[in-house]
Amino acid sequence: MKVAVLAGGVGGARLSQGLYRILPRDLTVIVNTGDDFQLHGLSISPDLDTVLYTLAEWADPVQGWGLQGDTQTCAQQLARLGGETWFRLGDLDLATHLFRTQRLSQGASLTQVTAELARSAGLQLQLLPMCDAPVPTKLRLATGWVDFQDYFVRRQHADPVLECRYQGADQTPPSSAVLEALKNAERIVLAPSNPFLSLQPIFSLQGFESLWAGCPARKVAVSPMIGEAAVKGPLASLLASLGHPVNSLGIAQLLRKWVDVLILDESDSALVPEIEKLGIQAICTPSLMKTTEDRERLAQVALHV
Amino acid sequence: MKVAVLAGGVGGARLSQGLYRILPRDLTVIVNTGDDFQLHGLSISPDLDTVLYTLAEWADPVQGWGLQGDTQTCAQQLARLGGETWFRLGDLDLATHLFRTQRLSQGASLTQVTAELARSAGLQLQLLPMCDAPVPTKLRLATGWVDFQDYFVRRQHADPVLECRYQGADQTPPSSAVLEALKNAERIVLAPSNPFLSLQPIFSLQGFESLWAGCPARKVAVSPMIGEAAVKGPLASLLASLGHPVNSLGIAQLLRKWVDVLILDESDSALVPEIEKLGIQAICTPSLMKTTEDRERLAQVALHV
Repeated sequence: MKVAVLAGGVGGARLSQGLYRILPRDLTVIVNTGDDFQLHGLSISPDLDTVLYTLAEWADPVQGWGLQGDTQTCAQQLARLGGETWFRLGDLDLATHLFRTQRLSQGASLTQVTAELARSAGLQLQLLPMCDAPVPTKLRLATGWVDFQDYFVRRQHADPVLECRYQGADQTPPSSAVLEALKNAERIVLAPSNPFLSLQPIFSLQGFESLWAGCPARKVAVSPMIGEAAVKGPLASLLASLGHPVNSLGIAQLLRKWVDVLILDESDSALVPEIEKLGIQAICTPSLMKTTEDRERLAQVALHV
Repeated sequence: MKVAVLAGGVGGARLSQGLYRILPRDLTVIVNTGDDFQLHGLSISPDLDTVLYTLAEWADPVQGWGLQGDTQTCAQQLARLGGETWFRLGDLDLATHLFRTQRLSQGASLTQVTAELARSAGLQLQLLPMCDAPVPTKLRLATGWVDFQDYFVRRQHADPVLECRYQGADQTPPSSAVLEALKNAERIVLAPSNPFLSLQPIFSLQGFESLWAGCPARKVAVSPMIGEAAVKGPLASLLASLGHPVNSLGIAQLLRKWVDVLILDESDSALVPEIEKLGIQAICTPSLMKTTEDRERLAQVALHV
């Protein structure tokens, strides 16, 4: 079975890993690049890197992002020199950014560079950025519009988000590799990623909604909410500040137009009747992915509902 | 006494360190930037860094460039990812390039960035790039024109150099800080740096020769040759392939129009009569700088001849 996943950061990476263990050759992971940015002259793609590192089994198992055993030699020296250190770069992690920046400067597309990195990491699946041009996510806080990483890392996502914009998305189509993968997929999975910060950027791309509508695959989403909390990140706060129910019902309302099925945590079974009233199927199962076995088990559910 | 030094890489850095120990507040070091380049999106200034690291006493004492105790975590990972590794970047060294690139992207001049780095390193002297715009040195080999780092690092300066060009130099003036420092200097020292690769780039800058002619300071050069060998680097090979005597007489012929005195190694005293025929004074003294004491002693000679 050919499967495509749309993924953002840590949750997306973990479900992708589960799917990869089941389908090492027939999987395409399509990753949000709305949080890509430039720092110190380097092109940084945090979501792509988190997915790459997780799939390669290089990821730091505690924080979920970054590389296991990474060191901070350069970052500490940068602090000593008075440089900007709000976005901490590990020495191993830096190599990814140097590689990407060098290849982009030589004219390679982000799709090509990502394929090269995936190959170097020994991966057999297809790992794709959602598009090749920058489509930076901008967020409106009480104090005005800010860049994604300014909100997410520098301010540690403490401010309520009042509005999201995906700058340039309506003039940027998904890459042809993404188009191809979605058309050929027999099943498409929306990973448990933040709808506003990881999935909407993909759906905002030029022509994406109609492409999506034309895909014959069954479409299954996994909710990133368990009870009133997000497993990771600022999703609960975003649901609240943007006026949605702060639970999997809020997720269902946001994703109903895109999917046939929503998988939610078994502890949220009381929400099933309300979700099914929205016209989508609701399936309850343990959805917290701590171990590799959890990831594989949840992936099996996503492949078979 | 206000002193200005023109310097390139390791030899220039070492004599500058000797001068700095004698004159911690009245020294300006003006550094060649003809070997600056971009790699992995980073702005790298090898000569500025060698001088900075040496003056800060951070330099690797064996190789003369790079940072003492530096590690290769990032470089090894970059190799694993299939990246370009011909120019090996240490983890500590990378921090300098990240800092410089970030500040340049924010609109700071190379002069400003260099002053910030010098301050962070605790230095009291004035450390100056020769100019703020890129003036890349290009070298003609038998196979055609190449970039400086291509010749110097990638090909390990093994090819004979047939011609040197300092691209854009005739349209790029020295920075106003360089102008000021040279006008105010009571003594100007040409460090034992490669005339073709370190000093000529500075003298090729727009208006530099007439600025130089108008400087009232006594001008003293230290020869980088001892016998028929350069202390470091490809100078002997360049003297030969460009048709000059491969010893301090060759250096004297190249520098005669710029200096009043040439300091050469005591072992080369037989060359003194021929050098003095060129109309410059020749002073013999031990010129190999192994220890800090050697550097300080040679600096004393350069200040008092």
